[in-house]
Amino acid sequence: MMDIDLEFFFKPRSIAIIGASADFSTISGKPLLYLREHGYQGKIFLVNPKYKEIAGYPCYPSIIEVPEPVDLALIAVNYKRVLSVLEQCAQKGVRFATIFSSGFAEVGEEGRILQQKLADLATRTNLRLCGPNCQGMVNLYDKVAAAFSASLDIKPLMPGPVGFVTQSGALGYSIFNLAQEEGIGFSYVVSTGNEVDLDSLDFISYLLEDKNTRIVFTYMEGIQDGRKFTRIADRALELGKPLAVLKVGRSEVGSKAASSHTAALTGSDQVYSAFFKQKGIIRVADIEEFIDFAKLASSGFKFTRGKKLGIITTSGGAGVLAADVAEESGLQIQQLQESTRRQILTIIPSYGSALNPVDITAQVINEPEAFREVLWTIVNDPGIDALVIVLTMVTGALGIRIAQDVVKIRSLIDKPIAVAWTAGDTLTSDCLKVLKSAGVPYYKSPVRCVRAMAHLLNYSTFRCEWKERINSLPQKVSFVSSVSKEVHELLAGTGKEMTERETKKLLASYGIPVTQEELARNQEEALQIAKNIGYPVALKVDSPDIMHKTEAKAIRLGIANEIELVEAFQDVLDNARNYAPDARLNGVLVQEMLSKEGVEVIIGVKNDLHFGPIIMFGLGGIYVEILKDVSLRVAPVSLDEAYSMIKEIRGYSLLAGARGRLPVDCVALADVIVKVSTMAMELKNELAELDINPLIVLPEGQGVKVVDALLIKR
Amino acid sequence: MMDIDLEFFFKPRSIAIIGASADFSTISGKPLLYLREHGYQGKIFLVNPKYKEIAGYPCYPSIIEVPEPVDLALIAVNYKRVLSVLEQCAQKGVRFATIFSSGFAEVGEEGRILQQKLADLATRTNLRLCGPNCQGMVNLYDKVAAAFSASLDIKPLMPGPVGFVTQSGALGYSIFNLAQEEGIGFSYVVSTGNEVDLDSLDFISYLLEDKNTRIVFTYMEGIQDGRKFTRIADRALELGKPLAVLKVGRSEVGSKAASSHTAALTGSDQVYSAFFKQKGIIRVADIEEFIDFAKLASSGFKFTRGKKLGIITTSGGAGVLAADVAEESGLQIQQLQESTRRQILTIIPSYGSALNPVDITAQVINEPEAFREVLWTIVNDPGIDALVIVLTMVTGALGIRIAQDVVKIRSLIDKPIAVAWTAGDTLTSDCLKVLKSAGVPYYKSPVRCVRAMAHLLNYSTFRCEWKERINSLPQKVSFVSSVSKEVHELLAGTGKEMTERETKKLLASYGIPVTQEELARNQEEALQIAKNIGYPVALKVDSPDIMHKTEAKAIRLGIANEIELVEAFQDVLDNARNYAPDARLNGVLVQEMLSKEGVEVIIGVKNDLHFGPIIMFGLGGIYVEILKDVSLRVAPVSLDEAYSMIKEIRGYSLLAGARGRLPVDCVALADVIVKVSTMAMELKNELAELDINPLIVLPEGQGVKVVDALLIKR
Repeated sequence: MMDIDLEFFFKPRSIAIIGASADFSTISGKPLLYLREHGYQGKIFLVNPKYKEIAGYPCYPSIIEVPEPVDLALIAVNYKRVLSVLEQCAQKGVRFATIFSSGFAEVGEEGRILQQKLADLATRTNLRLCGPNCQGMVNLYDKVAAAFSASLDIKPLMPGPVGFVTQSGALGYSIFNLAQEEGIGFSYVVSTGNEVDLDSLDFISYLLEDKNTRIVFTYMEGIQDGRKFTRIADRALELGKPLAVLKVGRSEVGSKAASSHTAALTGSDQVYSAFFKQKGIIRVADIEEFIDFAKLASSGFKFTRGKKLGIITTSGGAGVLAADVAEESGLQIQQLQESTRRQILTIIPSYGSALNPVDITAQVINEPEAFREVLWTIVNDPGIDALVIVLTMVTGALGIRIAQDVVKIRSLIDKPIAVAWTAGDTLTSDCLKVLKSAGVPYYKSPVRCVRAMAHLLNYSTFRCEWKERINSLPQKVSFVSSVSKEVHELLAGTGKEMTERETKKLLASYGIPVTQEELARNQEEALQIAKNIGYPVALKVDSPDIMHKTEAKAIRLGIANEIELVEAFQDVLDNARNYAPDARLNGVLVQEMLSKEGVEVIIGVKNDLHFGPIIMFGLGGIYVEILKDVSLRVAPVSLDEAYSMIKEIRGYSLLAGARGRLPVDCVALADVIVKVSTMAMELKNELAELDINPLIVLPEGQGVKVVDALLIKR
Repeated sequence: MMDIDLEFFFKPRSIAIIGASADFSTISGKPLLYLREHGYQGKIFLVNPKYKEIAGYPCYPSIIEVPEPVDLALIAVNYKRVLSVLEQCAQKGVRFATIFSSGFAEVGEEGRILQQKLADLATRTNLRLCGPNCQGMVNLYDKVAAAFSASLDIKPLMPGPVGFVTQSGALGYSIFNLAQEEGIGFSYVVSTGNEVDLDSLDFISYLLEDKNTRIVFTYMEGIQDGRKFTRIADRALELGKPLAVLKVGRSEVGSKAASSHTAALTGSDQVYSAFFKQKGIIRVADIEEFIDFAKLASSGFKFTRGKKLGIITTSGGAGVLAADVAEESGLQIQQLQESTRRQILTIIPSYGSALNPVDITAQVINEPEAFREVLWTIVNDPGIDALVIVLTMVTGALGIRIAQDVVKIRSLIDKPIAVAWTAGDTLTSDCLKVLKSAGVPYYKSPVRCVRAMAHLLNYSTFRCEWKERINSLPQKVSFVSSVSKEVHELLAGTGKEMTERETKKLLASYGIPVTQEELARNQEEALQIAKNIGYPVALKVDSPDIMHKTEAKAIRLGIANEIELVEAFQDVLDNARNYAPDARLNGVLVQEMLSKEGVEVIIGVKNDLHFGPIIMFGLGGIYVEILKDVSLRVAPVSLDEAYSMIKEIRGYSLLAGARGRLPVDCVALADVIVKVSTMAMELKNELAELDINPLIVLPEGQGVKVVDALLIKR
């Protein structure tokens, strides 16, 4: 992957503060304060014509006068002066500029014009820009606090494995501050502001490759380049670095998705959701949900495949609560092995439980050896991939011993272990200190503890399965320019909205089965074609000007014989003429009728502004339109993914043969989904939307056929 | 409501500890310690033949020897001795006993037998029991710490408006401890254990009537008497005291609900969910979700009707996050009034936003008057029912001033206000102290803050609407014994599974429209009946031994004329005989066929073990069986509730006239739901299950008709 080299943005050897102020309580004053307080090792140059010096540093009238090369300039001047200051930076050969100043695209049209000028400058010069309207960057390992957030009033900052890229400076640095107080260490934090040049994805890409960064977290409102995001997400999987996202803007889109049209169904937050799922990206709904996950993931973890959770608890009630959440989060709560159960029963009293969740009771807690023994027995059960220990009012000396036991067992075993210690700090702080100093993740709430574990296990399992797929099969569907001459000619010869016949021809050229059909220009041709196809047949008007054939009543189904055909042929043409007197009529399409045994499904494509072609699948009729029961994927879709699209809709059992129906041909269906995806990728510059509605899926072994389809070109 | 008088359980004038120990670290030693440490004002008597005295208190060999009357005995002896100790308590005239001892129903069959003996004793004597296997009760206002949980190591305990009843002692007292550290005051905590006699509902009922208790919270695994719960929930609404429930056991039931049968669809957790929704009971999914709500509700609130939330924030990102959650939680984020917006725009800078969420920017925070002015303007907008203020890194002297402004504004206005201060304690503790001392609820997470507010506004609105309903209309459906002689005769004359004809007769006697139909014992009768009804007709075998007529092929639809009828009549009888040679055949039911314009729906009743009749509604066919798209209510169902049942299914738009259909007769449909509910209540001792499938709902104004129905008697 060819990326921008951000080395000197994150590790600048010298920093200039332009608009530096001697008032350390202001945006222009704080960066000097923070750089010094957090121990920046490079050179600092101040630029401000109003001062001779600030805090012992000489102050230069402009960046041009700075006597040495500058890697990073921090711009804290009024928005009106930003452009001229940047021109000087470019002239000086500064590599990067972080623009704190507000007053650009976020204020409206005038600001947008000004921001465009910054964009032009970045294109024209070698100066790369971060911001404007951002809060700067902190590199915690190398002690570069090139930002002005009050969160930097905390000293020392705690380095660690989390790299954080945020589109909101204020919320982002708040999260950083909260997470630091919860003991989460960070490698870098970068606030991206309006992203006039460098964007979130550029920074995420750098962090993924950084050796100190093992988890990347991002707060996101939206990204421009979905394809770049795809490459980065794939790279994250390759490196085995979890990518966690707090993406906002769900609700607005939720209401927009009201319409039943394919276009609306691929509305943007739905696309993000589909994409996150497809790429194993962890979506969190709250700041705390991220902190909870980071706490667990930072504590060191192995990628194991498996979602079987063991729960040990001192409270039956807390165990049920934890099990509820585990199951809802996609984890499995399985029975322990018979031998494990027998062994536990020798230790715990009769009113405890050796089922999973294991209720060890207060008695076990009170016996020095018993707790450790139960813990050791359960954690070694091969049916357990990870363990959550839920403690209630276990306090004092007893609590400290229990904490020590947990630390001991954890040091001996590879499986992820987390503790929910549901009690106030006053009585448990000594116990929690034991866990903390050994790096054992702990939580107050069993629910939050289990959810964090679910994120870890779901991610690890996804990543293992992804690796197996990548290693075993050439899953990547090829979509290089194999587009044939035939396809190009076909596309060139149609209007913006292609007719059913044209669309089906295109689909057929990609190997997608369509109904047998031919265009009849007159009654005689129609009779001959129907004879060849065999009755019953359907008639549909063929006109580039009539897209809604049913509305025009220019369609007749189930024509059983020649007499009916003659009457219907005239009828279809008459209705079409009445509906649209000026429409160009190519003739009437004579089409085979399919048996009634199939199930109607819909396959749609929408060429998303950011992510490119999105593939949609759902059952036909009310399922999509009323119930919005669809699955989405960003193309290209592999065969594996096509099967998972089919299986994830709520109505899947109808395809699998519910209510005495025959199971349908899901093999052929998955094949068509992949072919549609291939076609959508190849034609992504030509195609805006495709709506195959319906595709009839026949009983197992009998294949599928496109009955109607409509393609809209870009 | 006639309830047990628990006055001397909660406010005992004297307490005996039976099995008292001098080791204050044990279950039998702690109660004395805690009673004394927390300042119990009544008399304490210790009972233990092994000691002469403990800590200066004389120790009696048995309760009999105690020289004064005893209101409450705490039983901390081995489970084997509990029964005999209780016998002595009864003999002594002790009013209440709380049994800490384990070893009863929770350990299996033997314990269950022992527990039954306690139950018998409670029935036989005037001694009322709490537990066994419980952790006791704390009355915080009157300083009665009659419990042994380590959570009582905190001194002093903080009294307040929350009454708490918990079926899990360990988890319950953990929650209590956590909540106390979060500043939530409690009136009472009671751990109910195995509930051999007094159950959660008895205690909840007492707490609702208690003047110090304004919010009742309960941890619940399940209750026995759903009807009692109904009365209590209604009383809670009457009193305007929110009832919040942490009910566990969702997941197990989730998996049980896999089957498509009505019986399975009303599986227990679904019934609880329906019941909670029906009664405005606040269901929380986590400990913290309760604490968050309690913090807000404890801070003093008025019941206002309205869910319109205003959001003010220093971070655009945090505002979107808060808005997402608000919308998902059922709140409305509406535009502010034009005049409000104009006024705000005069205060905030150009890069802020006067839309809702209002992004005030850091600049407003920096100006002494500006923040308070914006706050005042927004909170007075009549389109705002409540306000959430989301602050990010606002710290130091500035933060303290902002906190003071919030306190000031809140003191001047009646609307609920909450603060999300998303930053670590180190930098914000001084600011939070200002809020805390003024009782302003605050949170770290905007998500949790908004969710708490949603619980408050959703509850308040529900309660206001409930009151209006109660005051305006006699909504309570009468279900006193109006059961007619006809109905009784009908029921008496059938088998356990009533036939379609019998069931429909019963329905008709309740005024529910059914298809026109008559029983034909021979072909001639069938021809005559069909003539009277008019073709087309349906034929169905009528036999008390054939419930699955379709499976038996003993049903024929759409019979168009006499010739078809003659052939079908024989066919139906032949198939029935082949299917079940020994079946009693009453004849063949000749039935009208309905037009195809209607929509098929299902109405079901299941007589739930705990809640009594549960009414189910859903669309027919795949909607119920594949998609589980149903709504449930505990009977009796009012007309209002019937409409809400109809509207809450996902497929509702099909009834309202989606996809070019005619809207159907929801008035007649709601009427039938109410009638079914009335019937279910009247016949609750006779009816086990009722399945009306399908009921055809015809276009608006044309009514409904039951096409098929089956009733199973208890």
